[in-house]
Amino acid sequence: MLNNSPNSSNVQFRKEKDLLGEKDVPINAYYGIQTQRAIENFQITGVSINLFPTLVTALAMVKKAAAKTNAELKQLSQQKTDAICQACDEIIAGHLHEHFLVDVIQGGAGTSTNMNANEVIANRALEVLGHQKGEYQHLHPNNDVNMSQSTNDVYPTAVRMAIILKHSELVIAAQQLQRSLKEKATEFADVIKMGRTQLQDAVPMTLGLEFNAYATTIGEDVERIKWLADLFKEVNLGGTAIGTGINADQSYGRIAIEHLSRIACIDLCQASDLVEATSDMGAFVLFSSMLKRFAIKLSKICNDLRLLSSGPTAGLNEINLPQMQPGSSIMPGKVNPVIPEAVNQVAYNVIGNDLCVSMAAEAGQLQLNVMEPVIAYKMLESIQELTNATIMLSEKCIKGITANKERCRDYVDNSIGIVTALNPYIGYENASRIAKQALATGRRVVDLVKEEGLIAEEQLAEVLKPENMLSPHNLQKS
Amino acid sequence: MLNNSPNSSNVQFRKEKDLLGEKDVPINAYYGIQTQRAIENFQITGVSINLFPTLVTALAMVKKAAAKTNAELKQLSQQKTDAICQACDEIIAGHLHEHFLVDVIQGGAGTSTNMNANEVIANRALEVLGHQKGEYQHLHPNNDVNMSQSTNDVYPTAVRMAIILKHSELVIAAQQLQRSLKEKATEFADVIKMGRTQLQDAVPMTLGLEFNAYATTIGEDVERIKWLADLFKEVNLGGTAIGTGINADQSYGRIAIEHLSRIACIDLCQASDLVEATSDMGAFVLFSSMLKRFAIKLSKICNDLRLLSSGPTAGLNEINLPQMQPGSSIMPGKVNPVIPEAVNQVAYNVIGNDLCVSMAAEAGQLQLNVMEPVIAYKMLESIQELTNATIMLSEKCIKGITANKERCRDYVDNSIGIVTALNPYIGYENASRIAKQALATGRRVVDLVKEEGLIAEEQLAEVLKPENMLSPHNLQKS
Amino acid sequence: MLNNSPNSSNVQFRKEKDLLGEKDVPINAYYGIQTQRAIENFQITGVSINLFPTLVTALAMVKKAAAKTNAELKQLSQQKTDAICQACDEIIAGHLHEHFLVDVIQGGAGTSTNMNANEVIANRALEVLGHQKGEYQHLHPNNDVNMSQSTNDVYPTAVRMAIILKHSELVIAAQQLQRSLKEKATEFADVIKMGRTQLQDAVPMTLGLEFNAYATTIGEDVERIKWLADLFKEVNLGGTAIGTGINADQSYGRIAIEHLSRIACIDLCQASDLVEATSDMGAFVLFSSMLKRFAIKLSKICNDLRLLSSGPTAGLNEINLPQMQPGSSIMPGKVNPVIPEAVNQVAYNVIGNDLCVSMAAEAGQLQLNVMEPVIAYKMLESIQELTNATIMLSEKCIKGITANKERCRDYVDNSIGIVTALNPYIGYENASRIAKQALATGRRVVDLVKEEGLIAEEQLAEVLKPENMLSPHNLQKS
Amino acid sequence: MLNNSPNSSNVQFRKEKDLLGEKDVPINAYYGIQTQRAIENFQITGVSINLFPTLVTALAMVKKAAAKTNAELKQLSQQKTDAICQACDEIIAGHLHEHFLVDVIQGGAGTSTNMNANEVIANRALEVLGHQKGEYQHLHPNNDVNMSQSTNDVYPTAVRMAIILKHSELVIAAQQLQRSLKEKATEFADVIKMGRTQLQDAVPMTLGLEFNAYATTIGEDVERIKWLADLFKEVNLGGTAIGTGINADQSYGRIAIEHLSRIACIDLCQASDLVEATSDMGAFVLFSSMLKRFAIKLSKICNDLRLLSSGPTAGLNEINLPQMQPGSSIMPGKVNPVIPEAVNQVAYNVIGNDLCVSMAAEAGQLQLNVMEPVIAYKMLESIQELTNATIMLSEKCIKGITANKERCRDYVDNSIGIVTALNPYIGYENASRIAKQALATGRRVVDLVKEEGLIAEEQLAEVLKPENMLSPHNLQKS
Repeated sequence: MLNNSPNSSNVQFRKEKDLLGEKDVPINAYYGIQTQRAIENFQITGVSINLFPTLVTALAMVKKAAAKTNAELKQLSQQKTDAICQACDEIIAGHLHEHFLVDVIQGGAGTSTNMNANEVIANRALEVLGHQKGEYQHLHPNNDVNMSQSTNDVYPTAVRMAIILKHSELVIAAQQLQRSLKEKATEFADVIKMGRTQLQDAVPMTLGLEFNAYATTIGEDVERIKWLADLFKEVNLGGTAIGTGINADQSYGRIAIEHLSRIACIDLCQASDLVEATSDMGAFVLFSSMLKRFAIKLSKICNDLRLLSSGPTAGLNEINLPQMQPGSSIMPGKVNPVIPEAVNQVAYNVIGNDLCVSMAAEAGQLQLNVMEPVIAYKMLESIQELTNATIMLSEKCIKGITANKERCRDYVDNSIGIVTALNPYIGYENASRIAKQALATGRRVVDLVKEEGLIAEEQLAEVLKPENMLSPHNLQKS
Repeated sequence: MLNNSPNSSNVQFRKEKDLLGEKDVPINAYYGIQTQRAIENFQITGVSINLFPTLVTALAMVKKAAAKTNAELKQLSQQKTDAICQACDEIIAGHLHEHFLVDVIQGGAGTSTNMNANEVIANRALEVLGHQKGEYQHLHPNNDVNMSQSTNDVYPTAVRMAIILKHSELVIAAQQLQRSLKEKATEFADVIKMGRTQLQDAVPMTLGLEFNAYATTIGEDVERIKWLADLFKEVNLGGTAIGTGINADQSYGRIAIEHLSRIACIDLCQASDLVEATSDMGAFVLFSSMLKRFAIKLSKICNDLRLLSSGPTAGLNEINLPQMQPGSSIMPGKVNPVIPEAVNQVAYNVIGNDLCVSMAAEAGQLQLNVMEPVIAYKMLESIQELTNATIMLSEKCIKGITANKERCRDYVDNSIGIVTALNPYIGYENASRIAKQALATGRRVVDLVKEEGLIAEEQLAEVLKPENMLSPHNLQKS
Repeated sequence: MLNNSPNSSNVQFRKEKDLLGEKDVPINAYYGIQTQRAIENFQITGVSINLFPTLVTALAMVKKAAAKTNAELKQLSQQKTDAICQACDEIIAGHLHEHFLVDVIQGGAGTSTNMNANEVIANRALEVLGHQKGEYQHLHPNNDVNMSQSTNDVYPTAVRMAIILKHSELVIAAQQLQRSLKEKATEFADVIKMGRTQLQDAVPMTLGLEFNAYATTIGEDVERIKWLADLFKEVNLGGTAIGTGINADQSYGRIAIEHLSRIACIDLCQASDLVEATSDMGAFVLFSSMLKRFAIKLSKICNDLRLLSSGPTAGLNEINLPQMQPGSSIMPGKVNPVIPEAVNQVAYNVIGNDLCVSMAAEAGQLQLNVMEPVIAYKMLESIQELTNATIMLSEKCIKGITANKERCRDYVDNSIGIVTALNPYIGYENASRIAKQALATGRRVVDLVKEEGLIAEEQLAEVLKPENMLSPHNLQKS
Repeated sequence: MLNNSPNSSNVQFRKEKDLLGEKDVPINAYYGIQTQRAIENFQITGVSINLFPTLVTALAMVKKAAAKTNAELKQLSQQKTDAICQACDEIIAGHLHEHFLVDVIQGGAGTSTNMNANEVIANRALEVLGHQKGEYQHLHPNNDVNMSQSTNDVYPTAVRMAIILKHSELVIAAQQLQRSLKEKATEFADVIKMGRTQLQDAVPMTLGLEFNAYATTIGEDVERIKWLADLFKEVNLGGTAIGTGINADQSYGRIAIEHLSRIACIDLCQASDLVEATSDMGAFVLFSSMLKRFAIKLSKICNDLRLLSSGPTAGLNEINLPQMQPGSSIMPGKVNPVIPEAVNQVAYNVIGNDLCVSMAAEAGQLQLNVMEPVIAYKMLESIQELTNATIMLSEKCIKGITANKERCRDYVDNSIGIVTALNPYIGYENASRIAKQALATGRRVVDLVKEEGLIAEEQLAEVLKPENMLSPHNLQKS
């Protein structure tokens, strides 16, 4: 842990200076005075931006692309460019992240995060060039590292890239969950059970169909997540302060994005309207909502799993979840569906985060949305937690699920719901009457129908085979 | 339905004039030009403010109190005062509401609603005085009806009063629901059943205790709703435009609130800081959240009812809800828990409304919250729907619930959960081992414990009587 | 207004019968006993499903497609088919909607809505065939009109179609708004003004660029709304009760969807996993979120418009909104930005509705989401209100906006923000020092720079021309 | 940092055993096998429960109270009791918190948190008694530390206490903010400025009144927060598993709560309906909503501060916020309102957290709300962040605000809004006409009124003194 408190007795300091005056910075810190001010100003969450390494990495990628472009445009010397690129490469490789210390919630629309990057890169580049940290006359955080840039194009670009980089982990996790569910669908293909609508007995199906539906619904979200993540490939780099491109050469944006695409292996493009792109949070709102949708699906599946595994005696008890830990400090032998329960809670958190993102997006004013730091924070958190929850669900729950085949079959055999299949043969009203009678008397549907002679016995047997109710088939009415 | 379209061919018009020029108003309309403009400007929801008669009534009460005060302060002639009061009384008695036609969602912070009231009252008062509608030289919507007032103190005061008036219906409905639940608690006092935590069998309880808990939780909300509605008794009448009281006599506020309290039979008081009170939406946010809390409780109870009545065969089937309608267009004999399902949906709507209220409250700027119309709309809607849903739940569901006593008892008798009661006698680890064995072998807990001789048979029998597990009792360990 | 109360003294009744017994239905009502029960059961919102004619129409389209398919599969006589189709065509043409009277919030997952359609169509078809209403022995709501169908495939299919049909109006409104904004962008192309980030003076831009960004951002949403509405083209018709297709012929689904596509002129397809499609609300969640995104953008634009038109004296006063109505009951001459204010409120309502949809989607259990009625209700309401608000904003606000060109230019001329353009020439630290000095002394940036001789006068003049700061250009450093 | 990975090469382990079998636990860990399982099961947020020391402390307090009660009831030996109490006291004093490592999001309704406490206390107590960690035969986490308890009464009780303990910090911070605002109100008492409604010029007020309103509104929330925190004083300790008090002596609850009240210096009482209290989350929902209300108020104030300090040239520029850090990486001299911006973002996060709490509360089923861990997490986070944000706002922003008195006065002098004060003298229509004329011609209101001779010059001068418009005064009409 880096000691960043200027009050610690045994820390040495260097002096740095900015618009507001002089200030002590810990002598070993790669960050500088503006980061120091931000650290002191924002003591809110206790979470620094380096909790999200992809964001730090994305920032370094942008800075590297900018430096290469400035060199190409003859605005930055090759020597400075090389030093900056080396510093960026180190950060991309995972080093120096411990110097990215500003709070994830911060005022200034990401300026503190951008300056944190500018300062760390400048100081590391200074070292590369043989200078001391803080000797900005040789290489300056603003003039050199931030050349042709503004927080307002660098930061949104980096956040978008971080989401693209990070969403891949979620996609992989979701695909893994999809596979686990699909495997169970195959395993349970012949477990006949009652389908339920509105928690009431409906008509027969198989447990395999049920798990297959889960696999399908997750699979759809894999596609949608990938699809919507593509929206982030449009970036506003080159727009600088408000999208007019002030202080950037007219060819800067195009070249910088080419470099950046190569560095990040992402096929980025520049927004056609940079003024719009500087303040618009539309892609964030929609992707956050997509995360919400995925959370809702996970939550629905987990609600089902908990319901289907309820019991063991006084519940549905159709399936067994793997036992992960004793379930009670007082009730011996109780084992709870802890994994789905944890997933539910992650889902609620993600839905809450989505609301935070929506409110922050709505709060944008004029040429900038100053609330972008909390948007970045909550979205990266949601992706992270959903990824963890998805893996947990797949590995620690789905894969170990077993079916209580007989219990499932018993429900079907005793059910009144199968009367539905007789509808096309005896009519809705007769069927209703039979159903009512069966419920009142406890007698079986099949016996009541036989007794009334409403349908030939052979056909009755055929129609009422649960297996024949599992998929659309040729209706033979006479 | 009043014809308010200036394009209808067979409608006659009178001309009125305001700051922006002349305009046709239907000759029979009691409202005037400003209402006419607002009707044309805001065609959004299709819902007029007269959907909420209490709001219209509350406005008339404020206007009456103002007129009486102005008369007392010698600023309004007795003749005008009497005419205004008569018009207000008619509105309070339920007349003329069909002339309150502005959309519930409107710009202008309620000015259109206030002007709608001013104009209807002025025109009715003009008639009372023997003049024609629109002859404002004799009695003016702004100078006379709105004297000493601003939308910014009249409208918030009226909305607060409307909520106070309307919340009583919800309180009565909730008390009725509480009673229904309590009656069921008594009826089910001896229905022994398994309690469930995390949908897993826990320890025995009674169905009576379960329904009693529902009654308790609703009863608590009755208290909280009443408690928080009291916050609305503090009003900003007398603050006029921004709380400084401009254009109102210094004693106006005090006297007007005395009159208003008497007219409405509500014990109102004036806010101590009128500038704050003009823009603050705190009471709305908190009361809306209280409605959310009540909605959450209703939703939780309905979730439980649907779960406990699931089946009839492939579900828990502990209770039966009254049958309200056939449940399916295809599945004969199926009956669904439609009443709780409808309540759930009302709950989600109320929770969504609460978010709308929160966002609108946050959007206040400087000396006013201009979003108050949507706050009023959503809160009155939430109260209305919750009232309807609560009555429906009580009358069409709770009162007709019956218990499947034997099913409930079977669950207990076959349960492993009762092993918990042995904890203090044989220790958590022995009990865990027994539970595990019971689950694996299907043998009964009592037999396994006997076999191992871990506790004297008599004591065992005593401890494992479900009746003895239903409430704290004297632990006798040896 | 149809009189549907069985207690009215002068209404005549016919008797109908269902699973739960006999009941009176008004003799002129086209609906039957199940609708009657539902009307009595659900008295919640006061809003009937016929508030959304597209939903009623979509239901009739599905019923017509089903009848034609059943005829083709030889399960329904041509005579019955023709009568059913005629009834459906009348509903599609806008007739009989006054008989669709069940509450938009209802239990039963849409069964009451589906039965309302089945009964109205059956009774109208009976008339066509020369029978009396209620003589279901000749043509039955369940056996004939609902043949091969379940609420659980009919209702979701109809709701999806209703959204597709209705979203077109929103798209048209949004395109109209986009055009209005674009026209203003052209009109204001040469109005130079200060760009603002974080409400602080940033660098120059034009009012044209600002409005162009609004047009761009709305244009993007037009594309996204169309894109996401396509998700609804995948329907579950043919899945019947739980997606297994029970009681439908194996070729029914395919043929019915072909018919339906032709009837509705929408290119529908059948979901590949009908079990999943029966309960999944993913498309609703995502499209509702897209409506939220659009609402957020509208709200942001309206916030900006209100800010830019603030004043006239004590505000920014860069633009003038058209005057729509007097703004105050007490402050003469005050005119408020009522149109944007109303749009803000619609936005909050839509965001609240989205939360309701999310919660309802999460509440799905097992093979069905029983909360679909409130999902349909809130989404159709959101589309309707957004459409109205968008048209209102375009027609009653954007089109009439004028610019205060001189005021805008003054801000630029007096601004310190233009110092940014000197960065590449004099360095960030010199520029900071100059800016600080300018603010402290009130002197102009240009004079201070000249005084210090930091850059040649000619170049200074060139760089500081606001026109040169409006777009990326060739940086000439020496 | 405690090394808790069983895979680390240089860590030594001890074996422990539970219902599910044997497992390695790091030899130095005070926690045991159930905590170890939970750590491995829940790797979701990266945040352990010890992020909230008050929660850990509260747990220890409950355990101590339970032990003392069990001793008093002769169920726990004095020796064990003393050892347990010593362990608890150490935790209360802040020690051993590094062993509370389960994730804040966890399945099991807090069982893992409770067992983490039971195990740490048991192992520390074992040491005190001269045994090795893990020698549970001498003192057992379940049998002894958890005696007479269940997670389901211990955990909710501890969470409630943690909120009570923690909310005091928020109250102190809010009071401090209130004082800062009040001081500014005094300082700015004579700064006359235009009040604004709907961002349009309204009528005069003082900056002092504006800040006083902020102080008032914060002061109200101080009261409400304290008021609602009292709801948490009702706890369910003694209810054990589901509120029936199984395994606890009948006098246990009463005595335990007396002990606990003394230990925590909080005046706790036992819920009258323990079954209800076990699952009910009503107090959490309401208090979380209160935090939302406070967040909304903070956000509104910060929106205002950013607006009032906008500029310096192209904005309102009525006040100056203290400069905290350079505002831009590209725009020299720009300083942003970073502190209010950060507060806004905290507010959105808190509002999102409230939604999470609401959803989790709604998800309770039957006898327990299994989602309580995420409720606890989000509420403690909200309180923490609001406390930090409130202090930050007070110390780093409010205290340093200065007023631009002349700018404020200029707005008033040039304003048309003052015409309002003439209403009672010249009538609304004359006043409207004058206002319109003033706006069109740029002439001053006072001159136009004089010209028309509508009111005596002396009276005019008196009425139009801004000072006379600041508070209700005696209206003298003739």
